[in-house]
Amino acid sequence: MTPGFLIGLDYGTQSARGVLVDAESGAVVASHTHAYRHGTLSAALPDGTPLAPGWALQCATDYTEAAEAILGRLGRGRQVHGIGLGFTASSPLPARADGTPLSTLHPGAPHAYVKLWKHQAAQPWAERINARGGEFLRPVGGKLSAEWLIAKAAQMADESPALWQQAERFIEGGDWLVRQFTGEEARSLGFAAYKAQYLPGRGYPQGLVEGLEERLGPPLPIGSRAGRLNADWRARTGIEGEAAVAVAVIDSHVVMPAAGATSAGTLVGALGTSAAFMLLDDVERPLPSGIEGVARDGVLPGFWCYEAGQAGFGDMLEWQLRGLLQHTDLDRGFAHFNAQAAELRPGQNHLLALDWWNGCRVPLGDASLSGLLVGMNLQTTAVDVYRALLEALCFGTRRIVDCFTAGGAPVERILLTSGLSRNNPLLMQLMADVLGRRLQVPLIDHATAVGAAIHGAVAAGVVRDFAEGAQRYGAKSFVDYRPDPEAHAVYEGLYRQYVGLADNAGLRRAMHALDSFVPNPSSFESPPK
Amino acid sequence: MTPGFLIGLDYGTQSARGVLVDAESGAVVASHTHAYRHGTLSAALPDGTPLAPGWALQCATDYTEAAEAILGRLGRGRQVHGIGLGFTASSPLPARADGTPLSTLHPGAPHAYVKLWKHQAAQPWAERINARGGEFLRPVGGKLSAEWLIAKAAQMADESPALWQQAERFIEGGDWLVRQFTGEEARSLGFAAYKAQYLPGRGYPQGLVEGLEERLGPPLPIGSRAGRLNADWRARTGIEGEAAVAVAVIDSHVVMPAAGATSAGTLVGALGTSAAFMLLDDVERPLPSGIEGVARDGVLPGFWCYEAGQAGFGDMLEWQLRGLLQHTDLDRGFAHFNAQAAELRPGQNHLLALDWWNGCRVPLGDASLSGLLVGMNLQTTAVDVYRALLEALCFGTRRIVDCFTAGGAPVERILLTSGLSRNNPLLMQLMADVLGRRLQVPLIDHATAVGAAIHGAVAAGVVRDFAEGAQRYGAKSFVDYRPDPEAHAVYEGLYRQYVGLADNAGLRRAMHALDSFVPNPSSFESPPK
Repeated sequence: MTPGFLIGLDYGTQSARGVLVDAESGAVVASHTHAYRHGTLSAALPDGTPLAPGWALQCATDYTEAAEAILGRLGRGRQVHGIGLGFTASSPLPARADGTPLSTLHPGAPHAYVKLWKHQAAQPWAERINARGGEFLRPVGGKLSAEWLIAKAAQMADESPALWQQAERFIEGGDWLVRQFTGEEARSLGFAAYKAQYLPGRGYPQGLVEGLEERLGPPLPIGSRAGRLNADWRARTGIEGEAAVAVAVIDSHVVMPAAGATSAGTLVGALGTSAAFMLLDDVERPLPSGIEGVARDGVLPGFWCYEAGQAGFGDMLEWQLRGLLQHTDLDRGFAHFNAQAAELRPGQNHLLALDWWNGCRVPLGDASLSGLLVGMNLQTTAVDVYRALLEALCFGTRRIVDCFTAGGAPVERILLTSGLSRNNPLLMQLMADVLGRRLQVPLIDHATAVGAAIHGAVAAGVVRDFAEGAQRYGAKSFVDYRPDPEAHAVYEGLYRQYVGLADNAGLRRAMHALDSFVPNPSSFESPPK
Repeated sequence: MTPGFLIGLDYGTQSARGVLVDAESGAVVASHTHAYRHGTLSAALPDGTPLAPGWALQCATDYTEAAEAILGRLGRGRQVHGIGLGFTASSPLPARADGTPLSTLHPGAPHAYVKLWKHQAAQPWAERINARGGEFLRPVGGKLSAEWLIAKAAQMADESPALWQQAERFIEGGDWLVRQFTGEEARSLGFAAYKAQYLPGRGYPQGLVEGLEERLGPPLPIGSRAGRLNADWRARTGIEGEAAVAVAVIDSHVVMPAAGATSAGTLVGALGTSAAFMLLDDVERPLPSGIEGVARDGVLPGFWCYEAGQAGFGDMLEWQLRGLLQHTDLDRGFAHFNAQAAELRPGQNHLLALDWWNGCRVPLGDASLSGLLVGMNLQTTAVDVYRALLEALCFGTRRIVDCFTAGGAPVERILLTSGLSRNNPLLMQLMADVLGRRLQVPLIDHATAVGAAIHGAVAAGVVRDFAEGAQRYGAKSFVDYRPDPEAHAVYEGLYRQYVGLADNAGLRRAMHALDSFVPNPSSFESPPK
């Protein structure tokens, strides 16, 4: 192998991170993080134009600014074989055919910006499309999410037809950034399949949004080479060498090879603010009930990959410490609560929670559901509540695993990644106890960015395939968690109670009623008299 | 009227309070509080003998010590017409025929002490008696409480037959103290009817506890004169004058005339740590479903009085501030939370709680139920939770009022007394909004002790009856709270949700399951391996 490097880029919600990987040794030799200049625009555009509730935008130029900083810092004067890129999704933007984002032409128009994955304002359009139904909804459990590309396109075409006319392309932020790097559009099957309901052979769903198909483009399988870093970007970053650029990947998926997940039956859970679960399968099956979606070749070539998730995860724990208890030193707070909660035995807190602080993704797909805590008495402590939240997160994960196995998708190995998996051994042990299964936590830093670097390696031909890439650059060691049989027995009983509450129709009716008491957040500004 | 004074005594859980009332002007001219030397014994006896979980005892000699201090301080050298006494119940003790408490003879025997009202360890005996059933259970909704005298007697007779043999009397602490003052036993119909299921004409229920009837005694109607303060106590306190002593009264009942409640259709709610509700009626009716008990002449002569209550009330608010949020300055904490919570509109917190932190008394009579909070999202604040607890307390009260009216007992006037009623105007306004009714809060200090003084006045013949006593010595002014129609409309919807959750059988099953996960608190001491 020619000496040289790989660069992996991880574009998250607040910032982008890059790692520089030695292509021979596999060592991460440098990393760099760059926060987006404008962050997330949810109240107003940079020029002060106010945004309605539920909007969440970003500036495409923040992405190139971050890329220039990171690639320059990591790659200047270095032989770079390949570059890979993970990106939040669906985060599409309207652009001209030459790649110019409309926001640089119309800085005062909200619809000209990137609609970030968590932009919620397209909900009515998603509902309209769902009401029409259609065969294309089958692989996604019959329901289009408001967070996906088609709903966001529908909102723009409907609310801002003039801008929609000018938008020659409607493109995911990750695909757009690859186009900047190479000068040519090469869309990713990951985005297309999971976020725009593209099916190989059939293409994108037809007739949902006027003129949408002509603004999209045929996607390439994951691991494909999109092109080479072009002269402009070589000049801006000082990168030398082949610098093959891989097609972009959904950020939650890109971690798979870095975590060592390259075979069927492997379930990867990325446990962060929310939790994303990906299960690899080599057989086509009906979508298991409750699971959110499935696509082939969108995560790893040759595999079907199911998607599931918990809408709230680490943010629920942070809610308790920061939001409820007003802790300002979160690190110290978590250390204290984890130590205290570890002293409790299963069932000792007499509490049970439903992990729906941010709604329920799997199996109910209902964002209007909310959190529940039951069992409090006058002796209940904040530590009891904290442990109940930890346990509820595990029960929510257990429910997802149960959905997979009930649907016939085999879960043979479970890998848990992301910050909480590494930082919270109590949560991991509770996971093993609740699931009644062995778990593994890959010991690898910057796993998402390293996963992106593996995509770069595959695209550059530095490795034969993802299995080799995973072996060479992925996690080398794992922390094992094994269930305690007695704890598991108690949690079996508590989990049955959890399922009973989650399936309790009266409870859900109450949550919907509570949700609807003030239907529009804007009504807070003018209280009824 | 001969110039002189009345003394009212209020024997609570932690301390006794007395007031000195000018019999002519009605003014409270002095008051004094004395904490019990040994407080509540729940872990060990004074000699170190350990107590099992659920036990709660007191020393009878603490009561006489407090009486000597208070009566001496208030009455020395004064012409005292009458003395009245409110007392916690059921708080019975075993004594010799001469009044000697067995605890002075057997200081190392737990069963020799006063079993305080909140002693829970008689639960198995209550359940055994309930399983046998019987006509005597009808006026108490079919269920004997473990907190009542018969269950406590059954536990003692069963667990400590030798001591039970020595106990010539089994007597409520209030009746025992009256016996000390006068030298003669004169039991109160209040204790007998509500706490020992005595029915005029029929007497105490027969055959439940071996030898119990001979250890009790025929009760006198409320307002009766038990006797005069005897020479011994005159010497110890320096009290002069007639000093008629009224029969004792249950502490939650004694407040009625002081609050101005002397007519049928008046509902008095005493809102403290828990909430007690008394409704006066002049007609005999079947016990309304869910209501705990009814008796005649036990609260005011000539009236039937229904009892209901919420097992948790102010202690739930204190739980949030002290237990959950670890506030140390409660006054400041409550001021802050009340001010912030008042800024929220009905429904704005999107939360709903069931006020069962200490179980549910009315309408379910189930101490094993527990608290519930539903509707949390990542924006939910501690103030949102606080307001939800306030609202839940109001919904619980509303449920009690609804039980009364559904059972045909007319609720024409609502008076709310005790600390929270005076100190928390936000809670009172929410009460009016949730009930959709005008409420009144009597403006009177030391209402319970003043009520006891009115009993002393009736016993001494200083006034003709309780109506005159209430007029002369009771509350002269009231704070009115009237419902806001818009808030009431929102709370009607939320209350329907509250009732739906309270009636949700699946939820209650989950609470019972959580309660039973560690059935015996003592098992905490030896975790299973």
